[in-house]
Amino acid sequence: MTENHLTSLPEWTQLAVEAGRMKLPENHLKHLIRHNNRLEKFSVTGCGLFYDFSRQRLDAGSLRSLINLANARKISLRFRQMMAGEQVNTTEKRAALHTATRSFSKDPIFENGTDVMPDIRRIRDEIGKFSADIHSAKIRGSCGKSFKDVVVIGIGGSYLGTEFAATALQGSADKGIRLHFLSNVDIDNFGAIVDYIEPETTLWVVISKSYTTAETLANTNQVLQFMADKGLDAKNHIVTVTSKGSPGDNTANPVLKSFHMFDFIGGRYSVTSAVGGVPLSLYLGYDRFEEFLKGAEEIDIHANTAPANKNIPLIAALISVWNNNFLGYPAQGLIPYSHALSKLPAHIQQLSMESNGKSVTQKSETVDFPCGSIIFGEPGTNAQHSFFQLAHQGRPFPIEFIGVVNPCHQKYSGQSKGVTNHQELWANLMAQPQALATGKDDSNPSKFFPGNRPSSTLLINDLSPKNVGRLLAFYEAKTLFEAFIWDINPFDQYGVELGKTMAEDIRSEIAGKNKNPDYQFDNRDLIRKFYLEVLFNQKI
Amino acid sequence: MTENHLTSLPEWTQLAVEAGRMKLPENHLKHLIRHNNRLEKFSVTGCGLFYDFSRQRLDAGSLRSLINLANARKISLRFRQMMAGEQVNTTEKRAALHTATRSFSKDPIFENGTDVMPDIRRIRDEIGKFSADIHSAKIRGSCGKSFKDVVVIGIGGSYLGTEFAATALQGSADKGIRLHFLSNVDIDNFGAIVDYIEPETTLWVVISKSYTTAETLANTNQVLQFMADKGLDAKNHIVTVTSKGSPGDNTANPVLKSFHMFDFIGGRYSVTSAVGGVPLSLYLGYDRFEEFLKGAEEIDIHANTAPANKNIPLIAALISVWNNNFLGYPAQGLIPYSHALSKLPAHIQQLSMESNGKSVTQKSETVDFPCGSIIFGEPGTNAQHSFFQLAHQGRPFPIEFIGVVNPCHQKYSGQSKGVTNHQELWANLMAQPQALATGKDDSNPSKFFPGNRPSSTLLINDLSPKNVGRLLAFYEAKTLFEAFIWDINPFDQYGVELGKTMAEDIRSEIAGKNKNPDYQFDNRDLIRKFYLEVLFNQKI
Repeated sequence: MTENHLTSLPEWTQLAVEAGRMKLPENHLKHLIRHNNRLEKFSVTGCGLFYDFSRQRLDAGSLRSLINLANARKISLRFRQMMAGEQVNTTEKRAALHTATRSFSKDPIFENGTDVMPDIRRIRDEIGKFSADIHSAKIRGSCGKSFKDVVVIGIGGSYLGTEFAATALQGSADKGIRLHFLSNVDIDNFGAIVDYIEPETTLWVVISKSYTTAETLANTNQVLQFMADKGLDAKNHIVTVTSKGSPGDNTANPVLKSFHMFDFIGGRYSVTSAVGGVPLSLYLGYDRFEEFLKGAEEIDIHANTAPANKNIPLIAALISVWNNNFLGYPAQGLIPYSHALSKLPAHIQQLSMESNGKSVTQKSETVDFPCGSIIFGEPGTNAQHSFFQLAHQGRPFPIEFIGVVNPCHQKYSGQSKGVTNHQELWANLMAQPQALATGKDDSNPSKFFPGNRPSSTLLINDLSPKNVGRLLAFYEAKTLFEAFIWDINPFDQYGVELGKTMAEDIRSEIAGKNKNPDYQFDNRDLIRKFYLEVLFNQKI
Repeated sequence: MTENHLTSLPEWTQLAVEAGRMKLPENHLKHLIRHNNRLEKFSVTGCGLFYDFSRQRLDAGSLRSLINLANARKISLRFRQMMAGEQVNTTEKRAALHTATRSFSKDPIFENGTDVMPDIRRIRDEIGKFSADIHSAKIRGSCGKSFKDVVVIGIGGSYLGTEFAATALQGSADKGIRLHFLSNVDIDNFGAIVDYIEPETTLWVVISKSYTTAETLANTNQVLQFMADKGLDAKNHIVTVTSKGSPGDNTANPVLKSFHMFDFIGGRYSVTSAVGGVPLSLYLGYDRFEEFLKGAEEIDIHANTAPANKNIPLIAALISVWNNNFLGYPAQGLIPYSHALSKLPAHIQQLSMESNGKSVTQKSETVDFPCGSIIFGEPGTNAQHSFFQLAHQGRPFPIEFIGVVNPCHQKYSGQSKGVTNHQELWANLMAQPQALATGKDDSNPSKFFPGNRPSSTLLINDLSPKNVGRLLAFYEAKTLFEAFIWDINPFDQYGVELGKTMAEDIRSEIAGKNKNPDYQFDNRDLIRKFYLEVLFNQKI
């Protein structure tokens, strides 16, 4: 173990002591929240965000110790190095410059000696022009009709963040474009979409950095066949978002337009690149996409420059580490009290679990503490009527609540029980953290609530593009600060490789049998052989 | 502690010994799966289901001990008592007779001395007749147009199971009806739906047992106002599913039709009652709903009569208990390799976490073991590109995979890399459990896979109504068997009450301020006061 091994640091040891203290009965949340100025001392605000961690199980001492840990790990320096284009993705020997995609500064950002900003600005311009041409019907489908449906073909990081942002911004989608996502290789995903759209007025946006992703290629092939069957010229209905020179950016496979992706931006961090830029600009208009970028940029600057005790994503990351490593919670709920944010948990699930579900440090040591949380969630109040029974009386887990001060649909202001729907929603958003924290005594054990269940509440003013961009960048920075504390690489994902390799092996068996009905399946793995036979017999 | 306290049973102690043994290196899954006839010995089949638990971390000895535990806890007897109408919901002093809603036997089922079957049959007939009249346009909207959109207004158990079943059965929805769910009190849920539907051709199905659920009433009030604003007579556009004599079944509030719910069926078990029956019959036709019921009935009979070692939901429940209590996994992934099953995880999340996220036994003792798991999931292959990094290399959690042998959209049979989309999906469904179980050595620590990560695979032949009914009842029975082992009450949900009470209190503050702008918020809880001020100032 190296000398700056995390669990050997005095700051870590101190935190273990603090955690022991916080577990004492007198530090139950029901007592902590009554302390003077609790909310003022345990909340941070800025860049349109308000982050309340007054219902987390910490006090001034434990918060100070967490900040000491952040300083000992130099996580602010690491964030700065990342934004400056250093090779922070050490295993893959790359920079991680998603922050550059939303930089509107005139300053250059060098990656390996080259300023990346001219290319980034060029692609933004291309997206702006292309989406305007689609909206003005200057570019039309092969029958001369203007486009009405846009289908993103992409999986994982090629759609989850975009789906979150598009759903959050549905109130701003006034361009007459409906947006769909064809992600799963399951033919029933394809079938459900083509049952819905009109092929003549549909634009397909194929997103794959390498243009070798099995699911995306299989779906694209289905689309080519489908469009040909309808007598349509597919090349006038497809755009690609891919690496320069990939098979998707090749004149041998002509398409309407190719937009470039870069090696230095990973899928789960790519929403503000062309990956999100093309579909979101088509759905919302480029101007709104740019506002979204500017919201994200604002948080990047804040994360990069605010002192630790005022730094919102940094504080949120420290609380994750605290709950994960010191209070022993393996999972975290993410509950937006906004139906338009219903796709946020699925995006953060990928962002966080794929980034930080690791077992090896940057120094190739196996980690000796749990790292990465299970993230799950549904919108409130729905979640209250689903799994909150367990949150209140069963196995405890910390929750991040999100509140939106102003809803989109203000005009429906009718009241029930003296309050509007939005006020009813907020009554619940206020009640849940309080109930989780305080609990309730009851002589009937079925009605006893232990309380002491931690939560944070994050507020934004509304679902403007700027605020949605801020929310996105907040979670990105939070995820990265966690990784920097743990000293793991949040940019690689080697854990997905073994399954892919095994699937390739099985695929060749299937392809062998497709080609030659006499093909004999490998006899060495009898479980696998059983499933192959079920697949070909088409019954259990 | 009573003498038959769970953790004092010799069967429990024996399982702890077995678990210790299973943690030895020689019992790593990579070795276990190579044993002779592993799949034959560790799989069960019947009623159209195939359940493979060969990749669970157990051997013949631990399986036998689990079955001994099931016998010691008399869980089969409890299931039989439940189906026979005994008062198994002890805290609320009610029967739990969801199984009666899908009984097609001629035998009576007595609840408190009364045969419940005549009422159940009558309601099925009413649903059949009503949905046929909608489909034939015998019943039309107030402008004389036939209905095209059906919006369910309900939250929690009033929609999650129906949403799962409707999504799974979308391939059978040929009645020209689109189905939507208005669940969240967030006005943006309402706004998004009314932006989409045509009010003249929309039927609203309001579902609430008590007809006092705050969210459902608030949304229903919005609908009444909205329909009135459009000059439509709401009473010709609304049906209710509610308890006999509730405010939703009252001639003072006239509606097209009221369908009755019973006290002895809880929300999360109500899909096969009128709660699911009305929307699913409108969406699919009553005949298909009846096939769905018959699939569920088949599993009920199997769960009730099959011997423990052949009983599919019972074995699945034992594996949950094993993973939860003996191997120490706090969460479980549920990954259907079928896009049409994308809403299954959200339904099972409620079913399982609300039923079994408890801390008190039926004897009012506080449980001294973890009970209830965190359930989360997304469809495969999507999940592979999202959070499977953590599954393979981070914090381990058991996974239940689901495979569908035949997809709905068979006609799109184009191939990529020599295989169809469906075969590509299955190559991955086969590869993932294998990769999780075996792992892979690698001198590069970033590419090392520890393996030994348990999973089950459940197969069904296709997404017919019968199979979807079987799937539903399988998870219900599995959940109940877990509860019977733990001796907790899976039918109550007192854990949701405290939040509701606190929300009511906050609601009166908001209503007070709405009525009188000079109203002063309660000063005793400053955190709450802060949020109330943000809400009324409409900004952070």
